[in-house]
Amino acid sequence: METLAEVRSLLDWDQVAMMPAKAARARGDQNALISSLIHEWLTDPALIDLLSGAEAEQTDDPIRIAGLRNLRREVDQAVKVPASLVEALERARASGHVAWIRAREANDYALFKPALDKLIRLAQNWSDCLSAPGHHPYDALLDVYEPGSTIESVAPLLDRLERELLAFLGRLGVLGRNSADGPRDEPAPALPLVSQEMQRVLAEEVLAAIGFDLGAGRLDTSVHPVTVSMGSDDVRVTTRYDEHDFLKSLGAVMHEGGHGLYAQGLPNALRGTFTGEPAGLALHESQSRFYENFIGGSLPFFKWFAQRARERGVPVDAGQLFHARNRVVPSLIRVDADEATYNLHVIVRFRLEVALVEGSLDVDDLEAAWNNAYVDKLGIRPTSARNGVLQDVHWAEGIFGYFPTYALGNLFAASLGAAVEADLADLWHDVEIGRFGAFLDWLRERVHSKAHLFDSSTIVKMATGERDAVEDLMTHLRNRHGRLHGLVSGSTGL
Amino acid sequence: METLAEVRSLLDWDQVAMMPAKAARARGDQNALISSLIHEWLTDPALIDLLSGAEAEQTDDPIRIAGLRNLRREVDQAVKVPASLVEALERARASGHVAWIRAREANDYALFKPALDKLIRLAQNWSDCLSAPGHHPYDALLDVYEPGSTIESVAPLLDRLERELLAFLGRLGVLGRNSADGPRDEPAPALPLVSQEMQRVLAEEVLAAIGFDLGAGRLDTSVHPVTVSMGSDDVRVTTRYDEHDFLKSLGAVMHEGGHGLYAQGLPNALRGTFTGEPAGLALHESQSRFYENFIGGSLPFFKWFAQRARERGVPVDAGQLFHARNRVVPSLIRVDADEATYNLHVIVRFRLEVALVEGSLDVDDLEAAWNNAYVDKLGIRPTSARNGVLQDVHWAEGIFGYFPTYALGNLFAASLGAAVEADLADLWHDVEIGRFGAFLDWLRERVHSKAHLFDSSTIVKMATGERDAVEDLMTHLRNRHGRLHGLVSGSTGL
Repeated sequence: METLAEVRSLLDWDQVAMMPAKAARARGDQNALISSLIHEWLTDPALIDLLSGAEAEQTDDPIRIAGLRNLRREVDQAVKVPASLVEALERARASGHVAWIRAREANDYALFKPALDKLIRLAQNWSDCLSAPGHHPYDALLDVYEPGSTIESVAPLLDRLERELLAFLGRLGVLGRNSADGPRDEPAPALPLVSQEMQRVLAEEVLAAIGFDLGAGRLDTSVHPVTVSMGSDDVRVTTRYDEHDFLKSLGAVMHEGGHGLYAQGLPNALRGTFTGEPAGLALHESQSRFYENFIGGSLPFFKWFAQRARERGVPVDAGQLFHARNRVVPSLIRVDADEATYNLHVIVRFRLEVALVEGSLDVDDLEAAWNNAYVDKLGIRPTSARNGVLQDVHWAEGIFGYFPTYALGNLFAASLGAAVEADLADLWHDVEIGRFGAFLDWLRERVHSKAHLFDSSTIVKMATGERDAVEDLMTHLRNRHGRLHGLVSGSTGL
Repeated sequence: METLAEVRSLLDWDQVAMMPAKAARARGDQNALISSLIHEWLTDPALIDLLSGAEAEQTDDPIRIAGLRNLRREVDQAVKVPASLVEALERARASGHVAWIRAREANDYALFKPALDKLIRLAQNWSDCLSAPGHHPYDALLDVYEPGSTIESVAPLLDRLERELLAFLGRLGVLGRNSADGPRDEPAPALPLVSQEMQRVLAEEVLAAIGFDLGAGRLDTSVHPVTVSMGSDDVRVTTRYDEHDFLKSLGAVMHEGGHGLYAQGLPNALRGTFTGEPAGLALHESQSRFYENFIGGSLPFFKWFAQRARERGVPVDAGQLFHARNRVVPSLIRVDADEATYNLHVIVRFRLEVALVEGSLDVDDLEAAWNNAYVDKLGIRPTSARNGVLQDVHWAEGIFGYFPTYALGNLFAASLGAAVEADLADLWHDVEIGRFGAFLDWLRERVHSKAHLFDSSTIVKMATGERDAVEDLMTHLRNRHGRLHGLVSGSTGL
């Protein structure tokens, strides 16, 4: 079954990185076939009998406990959701995606509304199939992406994070410093033009330095950077290159590199089982954010990188890169947001999608609610549907419950960063001289090797001890961005 | 089922063009899984019942006749060969390949002999499972690669071709002009250094010009050039680049481009059935050879190409390229052979593998037989196992019956070339100005669109009328190479 999933991953990677445009229809058939084979496997009565029998036996073997829990979760999703609903969802996703593209082209949310409405109702039906009585309808959706998490565990955390972020950004004085019709667009510090080929060379150097095994993986280009894994021996990351802003690609490479290191670090001993998979998307995201932000946004990292770049004839200065990278500017587009404002974008979406799924917000009122939320939280108002409610693809593809994993990942990353900093006295000195091995070993042992033996928050807790993730994230932001804005004088290596 | 075959093709393409080295073991599992699913499908009793029922009904619908015949062939191969033999073959292929690599490294045929002996015995067993009484054991093997062909139909053709080639090469005076320990190595005409990137640009220009749809395909690099198709909307060709000899890549691109055009030209109406597949490897090879040799070795083609290359700053002359491309020099390595001596390499292998399979030649005597055949036919003696009996991978992978398709492909290509030349008065003028559309239309209509409705030789006969393929090939060789060597003064545009 896991082998089929690997094949499906190769189809996915190929689709974003390699596939010729006209192959889309055939690829649809291929994907559908592999998915149906996986579904057949998961709904095989013989398998389900075996599973039920095993569940009835007492065990205290953690691998067995995790194996049964993870398999049960997949089986339930396959068995409890009727095929007719799965098909309806597939069709609604396909037409939702088309409607979203059209609505974006016309810059008109109204064109997307009927498709979105249908997708929400199907998501509710889907949730009904899997929810135990009394559960919030959002829980089953969240559980797809971050197993074991519920709205009860997530919402208070994000509420607190929001309050802290708003207070911090208020002290920085960056909120609301914009006119009514658009964000204040500070000119970015000028970066040298760097050719795509040189960026690729530097990207491979960065990947190799942080420990990504290019003999068990690849780097390619795609419109949206992704990491796709066909097992720990075949992990493929992508990026895209902008000759005018090589920091974009560098950030993407560190981000996907973090995902890739996690995928390469999953234990071979558990390969071919659901327990050998990542524990969830939030933990996956914590690895990418650890590398992209905690390490890849630090001054020691830029000292190392600038030296490497200069050796290849790219005239850059560490301080210049550090400042360019760490500007805090409220903006309308989530994927372009800095790390200090990013989580507010996520929290806006989380609140809205919870309301949509529980039925307290109608799609007719979504655009206004979105725009008001941006004014409330970031102090800026979207100037169009395209840079507002139509900017993300997730809802158009029927993906509800995914957004909070971005913020949870940032929270996990902050606690992991704080714990690594406490455990490894030489951390920032090592980073400055390009030694990325010690903290990778730390992550390998405490995070990667745990795969899906436990849920994400348990793994993080075992790795870091009891920590306050919101406080860890705010400390990190205060140390890095507060100092840049003259609010604090820190002593850590940023 | 065909969709699964497309997925298997993607795995194959990825393996040669993209896959990181360490993924080999996982890829083996993925391939085995897809193959077992295909096998399961083909051996499903319900399918076989349906097939037998359909076969019992009278029909004169050619699509139905072809469909039943093609499906029966696949089902028979899946059903009649016991799983234990299939597994034994898989294992013997894997260890045969390893033994072949070791033997090549040590340059010692003896190290490969036991593995080869095992592979031959398993091929005999395989053939026994599928052969009707009285059939030559080679027939069932040949039928895998070129359906409908038998040793009775192939051997006389290749015997005659051999006699004609020997006579022609004798008149050219190129045979045996070598010392006992190696081929006469004439210095090749000097070619300009061309960067890999420029070769890639030119390769894409050539592919686009001959009609290969890069929106429904790709060009990549691999150690051995190949064409892999995931259906007519996704056809991927590869080449490799030698900066000192860009003609190698150009030849490979025209060769794989010919394969690719055939794959893109297979009719969508038959997609998803065995009848929508290529009729056989010989017909496939005829398309690659038509483009590589008949078109791509001609003076008009080089006039067009040299102009394109000069526009990109590559200083080449059409006459120089034409002469460099069309040197006739007996050599030891099949894949480097010119088109006038190439078929002798194939015929040597055909004779030897027939003898091995029917048991009239022992593996103990193979190396001597090989070396003697090279002295007899090409007038040169291999100087090592590596440039002799160990040069091809085919036997090491248990592939017997494939070699003759190379020569049959050249024969088909010659008849197609002669017929195109007769039908299209402007052919060579068109080629000289880069108009490659008329003969592609001709091939699309008469060859590509026929898919596997008929066997290869029937399709060629329908396309060209009754022709003598050996005579067509010899006429082509006399026109092109005889003239270059001052033997004839032709008038065609070669």
